[in-house]
Amino acid sequence: MLTRIDHIGIACFDLDKTVEFYRGTYGFEVFHTEINEEQGVREAMLKINETPDGGASYLQLLEPTRGDSAVGKWLTKNGEGVHHIAFGTADVDGVAADIRSKGVRVLYDEPRHGSMGSRITFLHPKDCHGVLTELVTADSRRTQAGGAASPAEQGEAGQDSDRKAHPRHDKPSAERASERRGERDEEGGKR
Amino acid sequence: MLTRIDHIGIACFDLDKTVEFYRGTYGFEVFHTEINEEQGVREAMLKINETPDGGASYLQLLEPTRGDSAVGKWLTKNGEGVHHIAFGTADVDGVAADIRSKGVRVLYDEPRHGSMGSRITFLHPKDCHGVLTELVTADSRRTQAGGAASPAEQGEAGQDSDRKAHPRHDKPSAERASERRGERDEEGGKR
Repeated sequence: MLTRIDHIGIACFDLDKTVEFYRGTYGFEVFHTEINEEQGVREAMLKINETPDGGASYLQLLEPTRGDSAVGKWLTKNGEGVHHIAFGTADVDGVAADIRSKGVRVLYDEPRHGSMGSRITFLHPKDCHGVLTELVTADSRRTQAGGAASPAEQGEAGQDSDRKAHPRHDKPSAERASERRGERDEEGGKR
Repeated sequence: MLTRIDHIGIACFDLDKTVEFYRGTYGFEVFHTEINEEQGVREAMLKINETPDGGASYLQLLEPTRGDSAVGKWLTKNGEGVHHIAFGTADVDGVAADIRSKGVRVLYDEPRHGSMGSRITFLHPKDCHGVLTELVTADSRRTQAGGAASPAEQGEAGQDSDRKAHPRHDKPSAERASERRGERDEEGGKR
């Protein structure tokens, strides 16, 4: 069961300028940033509102780190704009299996690791009336009130130690992102 | 202040088929339908989740009623997909004035009537990193728990009598839409 709009993914040429547009125009602040080298994106999550299921709805701003990434190719073809939408669920595995059984192409055999410790998969846009659609199960530590896992909680990640939660950053920082690059390489998928 | 993702506007060639896709694939039900002749769209609102500000987040599925409408032209150029995004606010007039003062083009001089009795305006996509962006203040009767105004409440619309709230429909119906066409003609703007 899908219980929220988790995020709207927006592709941009310059993440810092786009973050500044959303901050300056609307007052939206950056909740989280990271780089996903596998997907070739640098991203910023702006939390817009919380949701009754304990999650939240975000804007996800995406800048390609290389031109041959999926988002990079999409930008070359389409220019800046909405790249995908994402629905939140407590059970991405079950929902993805159910949707696959209905004949909609699910792009990953198994959900992959998305941003902020989430597990994600995508549905083929040609099977979804032109909309690239993502399914997200948030890291449970992220669904608590307050959003970001505390540094102490991160240390208690246990078997999820390869998917570290990240503390909130007030602005995207190439320096911080660079420091995280090593660990992000272990994460497949993009959120 | 913008307090929620109000909706994601999705353009489609066939509203009934697209509604059936969202119902059959995800279980999303239609909350509201209407035709806006001025904008040249037939639309269905699917409520995904409520929001802490008393509103909700929807998918808005849009089918052009004529090829020369904005959505019709957009579909011809782009094919089906995400057409715009919308943020909710209690004060669309104030927010629009503030954003205009920052140099972002606001498309309407005054907010217009949107679906479900809302007041809306749009921001120029070229000023918003490629994203056609709508600002929405929902009809206060729509922000109550339960969503749709009751028939009794509709009768109490008073000075808003030209902007009737519509009861929930379980499915979009060309017949119902046709019956409403006269009153919808009085409403400018699309949501």
